[in-house]
Amino acid sequence: MSHGPVAGIDIGGTKIAVLIVDVDGAVLGRAAHSSSVGDQAGAVDAIAAALDEALATANLERGDLEAIGVGVPGRVDTVKGRVTLAVNLGWTDFALRDALQLELGRPVVIENDARAAALGLHARGLVHGDLAYLAVGTGIAGGVILDGRLHRGARGLAGEIGHAIAEPGGRRCGCGQAGCLEAFASGPSIARRAVEAGADDATTARDVYLRAAAGDPIAGELADDVGRRLAWAVHLLVMAYDVHHVIVGGGVTHAGQPFEGPLRRELELLRAASRDAGELLPADIVEVLPPEAEPGAWGAVEVARQAGSAGMTAPIAPAPEATRGTEVVRPA
Amino acid sequence: MSHGPVAGIDIGGTKIAVLIVDVDGAVLGRAAHSSSVGDQAGAVDAIAAALDEALATANLERGDLEAIGVGVPGRVDTVKGRVTLAVNLGWTDFALRDALQLELGRPVVIENDARAAALGLHARGLVHGDLAYLAVGTGIAGGVILDGRLHRGARGLAGEIGHAIAEPGGRRCGCGQAGCLEAFASGPSIARRAVEAGADDATTARDVYLRAAAGDPIAGELADDVGRRLAWAVHLLVMAYDVHHVIVGGGVTHAGQPFEGPLRRELELLRAASRDAGELLPADIVEVLPPEAEPGAWGAVEVARQAGSAGMTAPIAPAPEATRGTEVVRPA
Repeated sequence: MSHGPVAGIDIGGTKIAVLIVDVDGAVLGRAAHSSSVGDQAGAVDAIAAALDEALATANLERGDLEAIGVGVPGRVDTVKGRVTLAVNLGWTDFALRDALQLELGRPVVIENDARAAALGLHARGLVHGDLAYLAVGTGIAGGVILDGRLHRGARGLAGEIGHAIAEPGGRRCGCGQAGCLEAFASGPSIARRAVEAGADDATTARDVYLRAAAGDPIAGELADDVGRRLAWAVHLLVMAYDVHHVIVGGGVTHAGQPFEGPLRRELELLRAASRDAGELLPADIVEVLPPEAEPGAWGAVEVARQAGSAGMTAPIAPAPEATRGTEVVRPA
Repeated sequence: MSHGPVAGIDIGGTKIAVLIVDVDGAVLGRAAHSSSVGDQAGAVDAIAAALDEALATANLERGDLEAIGVGVPGRVDTVKGRVTLAVNLGWTDFALRDALQLELGRPVVIENDARAAALGLHARGLVHGDLAYLAVGTGIAGGVILDGRLHRGARGLAGEIGHAIAEPGGRRCGCGQAGCLEAFASGPSIARRAVEAGADDATTARDVYLRAAAGDPIAGELADDVGRRLAWAVHLLVMAYDVHHVIVGGGVTHAGQPFEGPLRRELELLRAASRDAGELLPADIVEVLPPEAEPGAWGAVEVARQAGSAGMTAPIAPAPEATRGTEVVRPA
């Protein structure tokens, strides 16, 4: 368990959010950037800048931090501290942990963002029992707590529900597959589908939900379809894991009722269709988090807090490819 | 751990298989009936008859058995010993454990058949690391070993992959839902689809694979589609659980290469489509069990063997509805 303040950094497809939290869980500082972290070359600087901004709001310095947790939307090798693949960031085989430790001089632990969020919801006692967390944002991913523990799987990939095939032969996904859930229901996919249906090029998922709420029939149909796809995903998560709760969060969910309404209607249709689904999917099994819940940033905080006890931090020494310039930072 | 011989009884949609096994895992006796266990009223008699036949081949009596494990293709409440729903048997809310204990006079433990099979593959050391077992027979179901333990889930339903929706709006399933995996790829569904494609009414899944192997194009297309559906399921299981192995068994797999070939071809197509799938689905991740593997019966044996240590057995006293006649059997 940590003894000083920790930082949780949530890297999204279009934002960086930072929380500085003390040992009792009180927020000391925060920062939120509505911009992409950028490519691998610039990522460390962008993350450090966001962290420094949050530290300034807390009147703290980097050296005050016990540990830093980072949630990344992609495949993370937590042991080696590498992001092996983050399609929505364009990252491949990136030794992020060592590069950040070198820059920041403090212990860093990286984790997949959805897995981190699931861990945070559980560890903070916000959800009782086993849970699956479904993140719907720039990408779609899941994290799962089974028997009270984060289930990471053989390669840390358990919960990669965004690339489950929601419709064989369906829309082409950025990953190369046809019909991935993410190709139907992620933020960029919703926007793309709206453009295909005649909306102008600047349309976002948020616009789609605003129009759906205002009665636009094409946006309404699209919102319904997204609800259907996500109800399918909830059903799948429950059948696979048999968890007590499925918690839904991420940028797309911030649209509120226009997002949640179709999801709940489609779950009701699944329930009505079969006794199986009726038993598996009680109405209270799904919870959509409010926008202020910040599951990703709080998950990253929890990753940092558990860093010491789990023995997950690495010595602060650079992997060869993480060296920046000639000076190697080795804090006492 | 058990001290005497145990019996494992695998109840399938169209068969009952029994293994009598000693403490060292040697087979002492066996029986296999190619008929349905029947409705709830006749099930106990049918199971007892199959068990007695196996006991006779081992020169043993019921009283010699340490425990009896039973795998049931449906939803099982292992604590209460009830089959809550077994669609393919027509059973609902059946207190099978107590009814069997009353009839057989020995401790009985019941478990879902696919969960039991996964447990057996793991406990017998036949598969190293975490695994998902995919049973393809009269129904389709899964069982999963995570972190070295059977993951049953909050309600014992983890792994109900047969009713995952393989195609939204697709074929109607016996469960009431549209597009369940089981509606495409279970034995009866394969046969039904062949009939719909023009085959005669008596066609079985086995016939379809024989014809596919003989070059019949319609049967070949159907076999390919089943391979595609099951490759989808394998992909899903790996993404959900991130297991080291997916083991495929069950009656439909006994068709051999005509079954396995299309599955492997479709997995290869998934691998080729995306780097994600390429990494998640190495060629050796899937193993199709040979017909002689009997994963269900061996799984039931394992359920019986672990009965004592897991404290799963109940006192041999009937639940009110399990009473048959007036005499209550209470062995010493």
